[in-house]
Amino acid sequence: MEKTLSELAQLVDGEVIGDGGVKIVGVAPIEEARKGQITFIAHPRYVPHLNETEASAVIVSSKVGEAGKPLLRVANPYLAFAKILGIYAHRPYEPRGVDQRAWVSPTAKLGEEISIYPFVYVGDHVQIGNRVILFPGVFVGDNSVIGDDTLIYPNVSIYEGSRIGKRVILHGGVVIGSDGFGFARDGRRSVKIPQVGTVEIGDDVEIGANTTVDRAAMGKTIIKRGVKIDNLVQVAHSVTIGEDSIIVAQVGIAGSSKIGSNVILAGQVGVIDHIEIGDNAMVGPQSGVAKDLPPNQAFMGSPSIPHKEYLKAVMTFPKLPEMWRKIGQLGAKVRHLESEQNKRRPQSTEDIHDPDQ
Amino acid sequence: MEKTLSELAQLVDGEVIGDGGVKIVGVAPIEEARKGQITFIAHPRYVPHLNETEASAVIVSSKVGEAGKPLLRVANPYLAFAKILGIYAHRPYEPRGVDQRAWVSPTAKLGEEISIYPFVYVGDHVQIGNRVILFPGVFVGDNSVIGDDTLIYPNVSIYEGSRIGKRVILHGGVVIGSDGFGFARDGRRSVKIPQVGTVEIGDDVEIGANTTVDRAAMGKTIIKRGVKIDNLVQVAHSVTIGEDSIIVAQVGIAGSSKIGSNVILAGQVGVIDHIEIGDNAMVGPQSGVAKDLPPNQAFMGSPSIPHKEYLKAVMTFPKLPEMWRKIGQLGAKVRHLESEQNKRRPQSTEDIHDPDQ
Amino acid sequence: MEKTLSELAQLVDGEVIGDGGVKIVGVAPIEEARKGQITFIAHPRYVPHLNETEASAVIVSSKVGEAGKPLLRVANPYLAFAKILGIYAHRPYEPRGVDQRAWVSPTAKLGEEISIYPFVYVGDHVQIGNRVILFPGVFVGDNSVIGDDTLIYPNVSIYEGSRIGKRVILHGGVVIGSDGFGFARDGRRSVKIPQVGTVEIGDDVEIGANTTVDRAAMGKTIIKRGVKIDNLVQVAHSVTIGEDSIIVAQVGIAGSSKIGSNVILAGQVGVIDHIEIGDNAMVGPQSGVAKDLPPNQAFMGSPSIPHKEYLKAVMTFPKLPEMWRKIGQLGAKVRHLESEQNKRRPQSTEDIHDPDQ
Repeated sequence: MEKTLSELAQLVDGEVIGDGGVKIVGVAPIEEARKGQITFIAHPRYVPHLNETEASAVIVSSKVGEAGKPLLRVANPYLAFAKILGIYAHRPYEPRGVDQRAWVSPTAKLGEEISIYPFVYVGDHVQIGNRVILFPGVFVGDNSVIGDDTLIYPNVSIYEGSRIGKRVILHGGVVIGSDGFGFARDGRRSVKIPQVGTVEIGDDVEIGANTTVDRAAMGKTIIKRGVKIDNLVQVAHSVTIGEDSIIVAQVGIAGSSKIGSNVILAGQVGVIDHIEIGDNAMVGPQSGVAKDLPPNQAFMGSPSIPHKEYLKAVMTFPKLPEMWRKIGQLGAKVRHLESEQNKRRPQSTEDIHDPDQ
Repeated sequence: MEKTLSELAQLVDGEVIGDGGVKIVGVAPIEEARKGQITFIAHPRYVPHLNETEASAVIVSSKVGEAGKPLLRVANPYLAFAKILGIYAHRPYEPRGVDQRAWVSPTAKLGEEISIYPFVYVGDHVQIGNRVILFPGVFVGDNSVIGDDTLIYPNVSIYEGSRIGKRVILHGGVVIGSDGFGFARDGRRSVKIPQVGTVEIGDDVEIGANTTVDRAAMGKTIIKRGVKIDNLVQVAHSVTIGEDSIIVAQVGIAGSSKIGSNVILAGQVGVIDHIEIGDNAMVGPQSGVAKDLPPNQAFMGSPSIPHKEYLKAVMTFPKLPEMWRKIGQLGAKVRHLESEQNKRRPQSTEDIHDPDQ
Repeated sequence: MEKTLSELAQLVDGEVIGDGGVKIVGVAPIEEARKGQITFIAHPRYVPHLNETEASAVIVSSKVGEAGKPLLRVANPYLAFAKILGIYAHRPYEPRGVDQRAWVSPTAKLGEEISIYPFVYVGDHVQIGNRVILFPGVFVGDNSVIGDDTLIYPNVSIYEGSRIGKRVILHGGVVIGSDGFGFARDGRRSVKIPQVGTVEIGDDVEIGANTTVDRAAMGKTIIKRGVKIDNLVQVAHSVTIGEDSIIVAQVGIAGSSKIGSNVILAGQVGVIDHIEIGDNAMVGPQSGVAKDLPPNQAFMGSPSIPHKEYLKAVMTFPKLPEMWRKIGQLGAKVRHLESEQNKRRPQSTEDIHDPDQ
């Protein structure tokens, strides 16, 4: 594919500085970019390096004026880069139809222009939207619904009754709708609480490889529109994750907790059950969220506390042995001062009778 | 299905207060319950809310006397709820037989009334019990044994020689019997130690989605009767987990460690190798168990310490910067006091000669 | 199989003490070893126990002199044990060919003596080396390359364009080449950054069950020769892991970070994005690596600090409440001392005029 810089500028709502007719055939990071490619810089401080790249054009922020080569000025260079990369990385979709080595229930309703690879299982009464792609080894349980343009990578297991939105991406090995972890104790024995709820995944959600999303005990586990979940994340039964939230790898969210919208949970965070995290909250890596968190703030630590408070405390942590030693020394000195003071005072030990006064 | 409240009472060994003839057709949580459904309350303090639910009957503890609607009094309402939910959620099992798109070794021994879905692989000399269900994409390696009434969800991989008990549930993506992580160093290179042991899983065990259980280096990795394991848990080679223990999501148990019976490991706990955790011990979320733990106690932290001790210490943690500052201030004050005291004493610096005395 | 002790000694470059003609038919740990088996002891302190084992011979270190039974003296007993176990555990490989229930693209290039099980998918233009084994449910995306003697267990998903070396082992459920977790924010919405890079896995790498390795955003995610990765590990986009490094279970390595060679990351460690860990570094369990680490040192904690420093600090942690209390007590005592001192001085509060002097 080949586009002129001016054509790209139109697509990302940007402004060309220099020759808009330069031909762009691809995208590359600044160190690797060659003639014919466009690259981007995130900070104006990299402007002096613009002459070191062989790129034919550079996406820059609106703060950058001129440089020795054609520029594409935009409000958010990283976003424009993502969009332009999307243009070049795009491959036209060719539907494969239903491979005869797949098993599709005769009661399933299939959309148009779908691709169902070999060894896919589509259960009874399943609804598959238009242009859906199911890679090999995908299992879609009975009565599940998969929206238009959804892409499901190999060996994904979708238990029965799950609802997956439009333009969703599920990566390899994801499990949707497995039983929540619910037991009642009968003495020491655990009696399974039937998990009779379902899972509902909104439009434009992406879920990383080998992540697991349990079905609700009753009702629904809900992942709302635009949520992005990384690999190996655990979403327990009856959890709700609000719109546009970002859940990084290996996070675990325990049962019935409610994550607001536009929340960021960094890698390996743990969230206990039955709590709420407010909209726009951010939780730092490896934190443990043990109670409700208000919106619009950053938290860190296990248990998590406000981020700045955490940073101060954790930077003091290595001084603990020194603190312990100093407290001991201070104690000794204070005892010494006390005994010295006592020596200097008359025999009476009661301050109230202190004859010095 | 429709049962009278009296019939339910008999099934859970409970007592009816009010009209035992009321018809119950389902179960729901208290906020969602409608006419014809039964719900439950865990605490007597919710009794005043009983009139707000539309439920036709409520499961309550034996401490509750009367209310404006029929009650089912039991010793453990949550357990009775689980059992009654199980009654309504139960669907009669219809064996599918062996799908012709599965591959089953001619040397495998198959029980009666089994369901083997398409794309299942059953290896040589495998033994499958009665009423076993193998969902699509399940792999059962040679010489493995699977007990009666065991349910294995899609894309589970069971390596050769594994033994799975009766009434076991393995969720999607589980891997049983993968090689333990064992290497001997030859200079910097790692030489694989062949993992020649196996895995043995007892009756009534449930294992969550994408959990991994490695085969023993030699001997067996053992998960005993009634153990419940959540999603994304790592059980390393030669580990033993005692009866009825509960292992929450994303826990990792390193090689050869022995977890007692009735132990609870909360989410994201890590247990190092070659240690023992006593019966009935509880370990809080994100803890790191770095040495043997005695039975019957609760632990938390990384490294884990007794739970109460941990709570006190961790609540003090945010005060670290203040403590550091106060220690500095105390040091300055003590130095000042010392210098004042010195000024007031005669020239001799030896206390023993202090002429004030 | 049966070998004499002398034959084994030759294979592991060891020295026989005693009867080299004794017949060895297998290997076992010291408590379980029976007549005809060889076992090993790692420490000379176990020498007195040599008479308690029924083993016919024992692998010992060069520090051990004699014992009541034949010995095999070697520099590294554990390594010799691994090698001898490998000899006995070895089963001759019998290629199965391509099962007719697999789907192999006509454009794929297949090596000799391969084993492709049922329900394997091999995409267009894939290259499969000699003696490669693909277990059921393995997916190999278009244009991927798999080296000679590589063993891929069931339900592994290899996205298109991945390159896997020789003698690699991928355990069940592994996902290679899934999209990296990269989004640009457009207001609150996340715009996917196409992940156009690939994954390259060197020779002699082993990757544990359900581990995920994302493809690079651009360029390559690289796992170099001899790296051993345990189960449920997350390797994000554009990460590099150097030769012979060891990554224990449930570790997460965020985007673009570079792990040196011969590094050990213990279980549940988290490494943030865009940092470097030097060669031969060791990071203890559950640590959080939040900045570059120099080579040849051990680190621990979250954020990680030098190991010895961490141990001292963490052992002081449980004393925090006591420290807090002591600081309060010291403060009270110091205030008291100050007031006492003030009482004893004349009305003037300026030390410089202290008439006592």
